[in-house]
Amino acid sequence: MSDLLWPGDHRCGELFSDAAVLAALVGVESAWLRALVRHGVAPAEAGTDLAGRAGPEDLDRLAAAAESGGNPVIPLVALLRERAGTPAADWVHKGLTSQDVLDTALAMCLRDAVARLRVDIVVQVRALARLAGEHRGTPMAGRTLTQHAVPITFGVKAAGWLDDVLDAYDRLDVPPAARFGGAAGTLAGPAALAGSARGALALAAAAADELGLDHRPRPVTAIGDGLVACTDAWGRIANDVLLASRPEIGELSEEHGGGSSTMPQKRNPVLSVLIRRAALAAPPLGATLHAAAAARVDERPDGAWHVEWATLRTLARRAVTAGAQAADLLAGLRVHPDRMAATLAAARPGIDAEQRGFTGDADGPYRGATDAIIDAALQRAAGVLG
Amino acid sequence: MSDLLWPGDHRCGELFSDAAVLAALVGVESAWLRALVRHGVAPAEAGTDLAGRAGPEDLDRLAAAAESGGNPVIPLVALLRERAGTPAADWVHKGLTSQDVLDTALAMCLRDAVARLRVDIVVQVRALARLAGEHRGTPMAGRTLTQHAVPITFGVKAAGWLDDVLDAYDRLDVPPAARFGGAAGTLAGPAALAGSARGALALAAAAADELGLDHRPRPVTAIGDGLVACTDAWGRIANDVLLASRPEIGELSEEHGGGSSTMPQKRNPVLSVLIRRAALAAPPLGATLHAAAAARVDERPDGAWHVEWATLRTLARRAVTAGAQAADLLAGLRVHPDRMAATLAAARPGIDAEQRGFTGDADGPYRGATDAIIDAALQRAAGVLG
Amino acid sequence: MSDLLWPGDHRCGELFSDAAVLAALVGVESAWLRALVRHGVAPAEAGTDLAGRAGPEDLDRLAAAAESGGNPVIPLVALLRERAGTPAADWVHKGLTSQDVLDTALAMCLRDAVARLRVDIVVQVRALARLAGEHRGTPMAGRTLTQHAVPITFGVKAAGWLDDVLDAYDRLDVPPAARFGGAAGTLAGPAALAGSARGALALAAAAADELGLDHRPRPVTAIGDGLVACTDAWGRIANDVLLASRPEIGELSEEHGGGSSTMPQKRNPVLSVLIRRAALAAPPLGATLHAAAAARVDERPDGAWHVEWATLRTLARRAVTAGAQAADLLAGLRVHPDRMAATLAAARPGIDAEQRGFTGDADGPYRGATDAIIDAALQRAAGVLG
Amino acid sequence: MSDLLWPGDHRCGELFSDAAVLAALVGVESAWLRALVRHGVAPAEAGTDLAGRAGPEDLDRLAAAAESGGNPVIPLVALLRERAGTPAADWVHKGLTSQDVLDTALAMCLRDAVARLRVDIVVQVRALARLAGEHRGTPMAGRTLTQHAVPITFGVKAAGWLDDVLDAYDRLDVPPAARFGGAAGTLAGPAALAGSARGALALAAAAADELGLDHRPRPVTAIGDGLVACTDAWGRIANDVLLASRPEIGELSEEHGGGSSTMPQKRNPVLSVLIRRAALAAPPLGATLHAAAAARVDERPDGAWHVEWATLRTLARRAVTAGAQAADLLAGLRVHPDRMAATLAAARPGIDAEQRGFTGDADGPYRGATDAIIDAALQRAAGVLG
Repeated sequence: MSDLLWPGDHRCGELFSDAAVLAALVGVESAWLRALVRHGVAPAEAGTDLAGRAGPEDLDRLAAAAESGGNPVIPLVALLRERAGTPAADWVHKGLTSQDVLDTALAMCLRDAVARLRVDIVVQVRALARLAGEHRGTPMAGRTLTQHAVPITFGVKAAGWLDDVLDAYDRLDVPPAARFGGAAGTLAGPAALAGSARGALALAAAAADELGLDHRPRPVTAIGDGLVACTDAWGRIANDVLLASRPEIGELSEEHGGGSSTMPQKRNPVLSVLIRRAALAAPPLGATLHAAAAARVDERPDGAWHVEWATLRTLARRAVTAGAQAADLLAGLRVHPDRMAATLAAARPGIDAEQRGFTGDADGPYRGATDAIIDAALQRAAGVLG
Repeated sequence: MSDLLWPGDHRCGELFSDAAVLAALVGVESAWLRALVRHGVAPAEAGTDLAGRAGPEDLDRLAAAAESGGNPVIPLVALLRERAGTPAADWVHKGLTSQDVLDTALAMCLRDAVARLRVDIVVQVRALARLAGEHRGTPMAGRTLTQHAVPITFGVKAAGWLDDVLDAYDRLDVPPAARFGGAAGTLAGPAALAGSARGALALAAAAADELGLDHRPRPVTAIGDGLVACTDAWGRIANDVLLASRPEIGELSEEHGGGSSTMPQKRNPVLSVLIRRAALAAPPLGATLHAAAAARVDERPDGAWHVEWATLRTLARRAVTAGAQAADLLAGLRVHPDRMAATLAAARPGIDAEQRGFTGDADGPYRGATDAIIDAALQRAAGVLG
Repeated sequence: MSDLLWPGDHRCGELFSDAAVLAALVGVESAWLRALVRHGVAPAEAGTDLAGRAGPEDLDRLAAAAESGGNPVIPLVALLRERAGTPAADWVHKGLTSQDVLDTALAMCLRDAVARLRVDIVVQVRALARLAGEHRGTPMAGRTLTQHAVPITFGVKAAGWLDDVLDAYDRLDVPPAARFGGAAGTLAGPAALAGSARGALALAAAAADELGLDHRPRPVTAIGDGLVACTDAWGRIANDVLLASRPEIGELSEEHGGGSSTMPQKRNPVLSVLIRRAALAAPPLGATLHAAAAARVDERPDGAWHVEWATLRTLARRAVTAGAQAADLLAGLRVHPDRMAATLAAARPGIDAEQRGFTGDADGPYRGATDAIIDAALQRAAGVLG
Repeated sequence: MSDLLWPGDHRCGELFSDAAVLAALVGVESAWLRALVRHGVAPAEAGTDLAGRAGPEDLDRLAAAAESGGNPVIPLVALLRERAGTPAADWVHKGLTSQDVLDTALAMCLRDAVARLRVDIVVQVRALARLAGEHRGTPMAGRTLTQHAVPITFGVKAAGWLDDVLDAYDRLDVPPAARFGGAAGTLAGPAALAGSARGALALAAAAADELGLDHRPRPVTAIGDGLVACTDAWGRIANDVLLASRPEIGELSEEHGGGSSTMPQKRNPVLSVLIRRAALAAPPLGATLHAAAAARVDERPDGAWHVEWATLRTLARRAVTAGAQAADLLAGLRVHPDRMAATLAAARPGIDAEQRGFTGDADGPYRGATDAIIDAALQRAAGVLG
């Protein structure tokens, strides 16, 4: 699954790939079938393992066949029934609807993507905590509206990045959940099968538990917004690095610069460029999820559901790619205190004007409460780093 | 502050109006001035009350003057200093930067908007809980992809709306916070004034406490996303009401229909129309806040900060208007069980096909686990209704 | 109509203000009434002048009353009828529907906004043509991915900006059009009044002509996209100016820098900051218009029409403000060839590597085809400057 | 290239696939190499054919290698040089920059996508013209704000759809153009090679001509907006069909309904569902292109360029899929005049109220100017159908 037009996408590997989605779909059907057997709804002989009954070689066929019913679950169920043999075929997907299977499979893919993100965010947090601590006393020019404002330290700047990343991390805390509601979400099918509402709830809970998923679905926009919050945080860092990597400033640089097809001297801050790219792409994808949520109607909407699938996949892969790049960027970031000092010196005496207004002493306590700000961020970081 | 092009906007009254923003800005400067006096930084005589020193009559002048520095705080501070007299003039805004004052004032306006939303959401929740309870046993056709799917009850449909509204309500729980960080967010100015970092933190805490605001700013996208989640939830309800209000369906209707300029017979579902309008407008506004967050650079960004102000105001007023309309819509919603029954009867026997597949008995337990679903939603509602 | 949260908005004056919209609405009703009289449908005595029958003092009342029917035309028609006296009252709005009046009034407001934009774009084009011509031979460092790439001239950079502005200018060429279609757009009402389809078309044409509007409405997204294309073009210029205004680069500066509330030394590139702000806000507003177009249903949609009005107004005012600011920015732009030369010198020899690869002579024809590129842009500009 | 999460995507075949992009990239390099040879810049022996020197088997490797420099052209050029042999290797890509090759290749892919769209739009226009003509006299209820408004004909409704599609068709008329500008767009490299600016322009023109592309690039937003305008038009049609396909209305139906995974009786209007899905997805993608345009800086921007590539691809494939589905939908649309008549009858007498207000005769000229409206649309259609 190459993506020539989104360099870095290969870092996602199979996350949310068609093959991974298919495996998750089959996993959901399997978990349901097992729940039916274990709760005595289906006979024990129906309890065949569906894993491996459909795989990558079926993707082209399934994708093409998905159009006539509007989703890939319909042809997949046909295929699984065909391959599961008697009596399992009679019980595959029994009581479910396409949305159950697809939404639950997407939750599984999202869980994997978020797990990957957490790993990379921990790397980022560790790097940022180190930068904030080590550069607690590294003076540099603070800038507002592009102009030199007042002196700050690189440590407090890194602490600001860190706070942002931690805020984003918190927003990923949306439990991935199963949906087993049947045709209109009322559990009528399962209730008919199990003979009672209580039985239907037990079936749904059993299948969700087997998949390790929460029982109550949250609006998909919640995790979508969390993913966008991540790319926002990384985008801000990338912007700062891109600026500081400019030769006229030179206060930061990436560990490895990227080359050019025609200019041999160039060392481009490529990771930052690619992260910034993701930060431009993500907000409209998040908005698509909200627009879809706002366009819902009926017990299953006529397009607003369908648009979520690929949007979630794209958003998740963009976030995972950017998260991995941000981890690399921060772990390898080169800080140039000499250039920071030189900028600050050149910005004087103007940059000290505010402080002189207070103290008449530009060498006074210009670090402000930066240590306290840094320490607060480090304390939050410790909660993540364990 | 009329808005001829957003009918219903008058329901917001002065929420986030220019006058309200100005009052909040003055309130922030006042709180800071008082903190300076109470902490012995400024002399007691500087402790004048700024409230009323700038008011609606200054708005045109301040708005026009805001352009040259890029924000309204700069001319406001000049005005307040001019009017505060000696010695207060020397201490007004001392140690702060424009962003402190503007962001904190916006947090105050947001708090008022959210408070208003909570009131209207409680009305909605009460109405929805009543509908879900009363119509627990009111059968209707469930619809998926526009077609009759399986029987449901109107109670379980209302419970679905209720769950959605409660999810959105939860997302409004973002503590509005003050920002008192000085020129580059390092508290250097306050520290210089107070003589220590500890003193600077105490000043910031005191001013925030006086305003009743939290001390730690959250990303503005968090509350922005919460507002959009609200309009998403109401948009879905509006879509269902709009559909059910069609004369061919007639299962629901608004309490008062809207008239037409030329067709005397019309009874338009106007509240739903106007709510749906807000649900279309909100997601791109939320995306603007994310795009701004992703475009941050430096200690204060060159445009990405400025775009947030009006976007937040528009989003908040859209949400408050829609929230009030949704409260009216739900409190007055007319349910027509006879028409629901007629639709269901006409949809038979097809609509019972799924159940017959399970039980051979279409009059069987088609209500599924709807009582359990409704009860769970009612229990969540009880947490809000108290 | 102050806007404290969008500094510079006062430059729009009454463009698209509630008062202007109301005047346009009354103007549309007047033109229709006159057409009815002139074509002998209404009696001569009905031909009263409606202008002035409703004005700014009615705005609050009309805005509040707009909610019950969902649009401001319904209460306005009631008001005009009340005030027009007999027999005009019987003929006001006869044969029209709210959408006719509102869409045509919006077209009038848009026409005024575009006319204003054209004036400011001509100023921009004149300034850009001057910059491109004067700096044809001013060398500077070309930059790609933030790094020094190859030498260019400031003239060719200004020519690139110019080309962009001219492309945007072309996209404003969407004729503003009247809509006189009656209740469902079929001209049935007018046809009943005039006694024939031909008569209905004549009435619609006469009213459109009187208002100076085209007869065939275009999708509102066409002009919306044109407005966004403008802010895109200005946003790019602002980004380049913001970068070049940084003290470390210093190759360009605004004529007047903006001040700070706390840092006396600052000279912020405020016009560029505010333009960049608009460039962030506009794309999602354009997307709202597209989302509304895509959500249309029936002969008049249930919310998708309503969301267009305020979105168009906001987008138009954002564009007009940014256009005026861009005109000022470019007319007053300060170019610093010495700083450009210094950057270029410091970037050597690396920046000449590509050329040396071709010619072994870094002082060779590095200006490339810049004169030809500049001349082509100047030729396009001449078409606008007349 | 299966896409399990966007049913119908397989209709795009290889349009804009990684393989197609790669072939286009190689095609651009080939055209340039030939231009160098033909203009005597490179020796005749360098004129090897590059087609086939890189192919699908290289995609994974190229995609992964694209990250380090930020784009796929850098590793592709290395590969082509390696495989082209001496002396071609010395001349491959000489004078170009990555952006030249990538932007020109994207223009080629866009051209192919637009060509495909035109074919499908012609099918749509033919179907719509037929529907408008055949149902010129088929009465139905016009609806506004979901309620019955006045009688119309299905013919005039189809003519409205047709006008919309024709408007969108017009917006696709953006000539795809080559970009051969060299490192910073100044043609300095080509000029150094050719020995003159004139020579550089000749080289660029020759390569563009060989690829059949225009010489002047337009903003990528122009074609992006055109693609979104298409999905807007189809989205509106889909919404009307979805509504009319509801069993309670039944005035229209798709030729083939889609099935369900669990409800045997269902006939879902799947094509309309999938088209509506695309109409929800496209506007934010168009906004991303605008946001990228607005974020440009320098001679090549640091992320704003990179985000365009995949966004364009996704938008183009979404549009092509929806266009093919809309062609099928319209060519096979089933119209049910009996149901339309029944709705109209049931809506009487209310629906005639407006006409009675004019004529006292509800059977009067209610068709308004519908014939004239239809004829005007048919005349526009004839221009496309030839």
